[in-house]
Amino acid sequence: MSKLDNQTDVVLKSADATLDAATERWFALLRIPSVSAQPAHAADCARAAEWARGQLSEIGFRAAVRATAGHPCVVAHHPGPGENGPHLLYYGHYDVQPPEPLELWASPPFEPTIVDGPRGKRVVARGAVDDKGQVSTWLAAFRAWHAVTGSLPVRVSVLLEGEEEVGSPSLEPFLIANRRELAADVAVISDTGMWDIDTPAITTRLRGLVYVQVTLKGPERDLHSGMYGGSALNPINALTRILGDLHDPQGRIQVPGFYDQVRAVSPEQARQWAALGFDEAAFLGGIGLSHPAGEAGVSPLERLWARPTADINGIWGGYTGAGAKTVIATEAHAKLSFRLVPDQDPQAVLDGFKRFVAERLPADARVAYEVFGLAPAIDVPTDSSWVRGARAALAEEFGREPLLMGCGGSIPVVDSLRRVLGMDSLLVGFGLDDDQPHSPGEKFELRSFQRGIRSHIRMLAKLADL
Amino acid sequence: MSKLDNQTDVVLKSADATLDAATERWFALLRIPSVSAQPAHAADCARAAEWARGQLSEIGFRAAVRATAGHPCVVAHHPGPGENGPHLLYYGHYDVQPPEPLELWASPPFEPTIVDGPRGKRVVARGAVDDKGQVSTWLAAFRAWHAVTGSLPVRVSVLLEGEEEVGSPSLEPFLIANRRELAADVAVISDTGMWDIDTPAITTRLRGLVYVQVTLKGPERDLHSGMYGGSALNPINALTRILGDLHDPQGRIQVPGFYDQVRAVSPEQARQWAALGFDEAAFLGGIGLSHPAGEAGVSPLERLWARPTADINGIWGGYTGAGAKTVIATEAHAKLSFRLVPDQDPQAVLDGFKRFVAERLPADARVAYEVFGLAPAIDVPTDSSWVRGARAALAEEFGREPLLMGCGGSIPVVDSLRRVLGMDSLLVGFGLDDDQPHSPGEKFELRSFQRGIRSHIRMLAKLADL
Repeated sequence: MSKLDNQTDVVLKSADATLDAATERWFALLRIPSVSAQPAHAADCARAAEWARGQLSEIGFRAAVRATAGHPCVVAHHPGPGENGPHLLYYGHYDVQPPEPLELWASPPFEPTIVDGPRGKRVVARGAVDDKGQVSTWLAAFRAWHAVTGSLPVRVSVLLEGEEEVGSPSLEPFLIANRRELAADVAVISDTGMWDIDTPAITTRLRGLVYVQVTLKGPERDLHSGMYGGSALNPINALTRILGDLHDPQGRIQVPGFYDQVRAVSPEQARQWAALGFDEAAFLGGIGLSHPAGEAGVSPLERLWARPTADINGIWGGYTGAGAKTVIATEAHAKLSFRLVPDQDPQAVLDGFKRFVAERLPADARVAYEVFGLAPAIDVPTDSSWVRGARAALAEEFGREPLLMGCGGSIPVVDSLRRVLGMDSLLVGFGLDDDQPHSPGEKFELRSFQRGIRSHIRMLAKLADL
Repeated sequence: MSKLDNQTDVVLKSADATLDAATERWFALLRIPSVSAQPAHAADCARAAEWARGQLSEIGFRAAVRATAGHPCVVAHHPGPGENGPHLLYYGHYDVQPPEPLELWASPPFEPTIVDGPRGKRVVARGAVDDKGQVSTWLAAFRAWHAVTGSLPVRVSVLLEGEEEVGSPSLEPFLIANRRELAADVAVISDTGMWDIDTPAITTRLRGLVYVQVTLKGPERDLHSGMYGGSALNPINALTRILGDLHDPQGRIQVPGFYDQVRAVSPEQARQWAALGFDEAAFLGGIGLSHPAGEAGVSPLERLWARPTADINGIWGGYTGAGAKTVIATEAHAKLSFRLVPDQDPQAVLDGFKRFVAERLPADARVAYEVFGLAPAIDVPTDSSWVRGARAALAEEFGREPLLMGCGGSIPVVDSLRRVLGMDSLLVGFGLDDDQPHSPGEKFELRSFQRGIRSHIRMLAKLADL
């Protein structure tokens, strides 16, 4: 047993003993409504950044809030033991999704509430897991090491951003402007999930994202549908006609060129995923569904991890109040996201979508776009020493081997870190399928929170030893 | 020249001399925001009814506000000269459409504002024309006859309702419950338009209406599109897919059985309409469009007056705020209206639409409906003595023969009056194509208001003389 192994046990005990204080710090962060999408919450975003800076300063980091064109970043550095060991960059985000619709929350979204669940106590709040809860696991791990040893076992830098939920528009310029300062050997990110509450996971495959808002304009003002129906273009009719054509009857996306770069999953990968015994019926049953949507003839995990998708995330136009109004609206809007797989070029997908719309655009309709996200999919190498170190730490904590998983979501920073800083990411997160990030009632299991802290304590030691 | 003709000239002079006072009374009604669709305005609806009752009482009517299950009706009776002449029932509505979107009004919607237009002064307000302005023309005609002669030249009853803009749910029960009291020889309704500002019209053809709200439910809560995209049903995708299929590429509506009862326009009718020289390019140019929508190969007036339509009047679901939210929504909604032509059965159209949706409903999706309107189309006989009387009155006032027109809109009361009271309707209105009823900036030309009053003064005399 090495000296670090000995210390790790002491640090784990210290973390367990101070779990309540760690929970309280996490709650303090959850109480700040740092909704990056809503301009009214800009000051709350700044407050969350300042809060994180303060936390890091308390435990030996040189930490600063740094301005960007949008919400600020927090950057912090800890020298660790001061030797020539590895240098880790912990990335996370302090911003959260909008809490709406508010009426579907059983408790206020920015007042963390502990409730009983089938796996013990859980914490309900916007950001409970995504990403404030997960960030809090590694902040607590740093604090535990600092409390026991006065330092960290490895050199650590921290980058927290405040625009992850709106497509990280300022992140890449910030990475470019601070390329030298942020250089490290590997990035550690906790913004993903486990296989289940007892089976940890390392995510090695992430889907990319194109997020675009489309506006279709027709007549120059709202019209009486009785007077004009049958003669005037109705932009809502036209928008449903165009977007209703997004998928063919087999669930394949009809954007031109969409699948040109999509590789089939290797037979070996397909076998591995099949061996996981993923229960799609249970997965869908948890949300009140029983029939898988998506591409026909494709296995469930392949659909979730290795196939691109197109979802309309919002749509609106015309009269949406109570009762009836016989109006032909002047315009109609929709927000769409495409999840991408490796080798798909986000810009090519966006261009293809614009072509798809243009080919179906009725005479007189005008179209406008706003783009809120463009990120390619990611394949993380699974044979690195970083992955080996993280596997060892997770196996010790959970008493079983972690799975190497795909993830349907997108974490654009992984691509930016690779392109701008030449750095791979180690994606180790503690979320569960039913945590409901982005939904009303978002939660994080207290058990996952504690195991996340303990896992990060172990990982800091394992990664230091490489 | 009969005695009534002599009196008519005096009454016309009196009306012209008191036009400012008539305008002020009309403005008082416009200032009451009697939006029937919005529960917050229920008291305003009651206030508008009470206002009308007061007006009618002042000019010799026995008038009362009468409760219904919804907004109240106003019923009033005037014996006229007390002889065995004709008995007319004037119908109108005091409720108005919601004014939203408010930001598109240049002046407050419930503060009538006089502005200059290409045809002289016009009044801008919600309800300026539909139907407060038109109702005010016949109220002013009554008042002018009352001022000059102390009575009316003909026996008149009045029925004003407060739910026309929400599909008149309480009207038919009210007609049935008061069948005897409301019986008359013919109904007179001013809720339609002229051919142009110098060419009066009698509307003899009205489209019917089915107004239905459809809600598609998918997963039992909002989901993260990254985590669930490719597996979970997206109800917005599904709704656009279903509604995008409403029309075939030729613009024909694909609801099963939709055209089964639709009669072709007779060659004679088609010739008459072609002779009107309707300029669809100008009609569409006025709203910033240049290409007719609707059925291919059908003439413009036929599309507007004699062919059924399907318009989505509103659509909403998912995230509609600023920026991006990668959510799969739990449900999606749309409001649709079908305009019907004679012989189409509204209930059969509604049933057909439900079948249309059911045939396209994906597994797991649940659907719910709310119906806000069900009314058949109307063909009014053109050879009645009432039509002849109105034609003579309009020809004298405008110096040219009125046109017998179709109307794309729906006035469900015409069907109810025929079915419940066995009464035909005489549809004489003074609106113009660019009045923008139901839109921001609704207006009524002051010239049309004055000619409307004068036309009703003449009609009262002509219809008394039959």
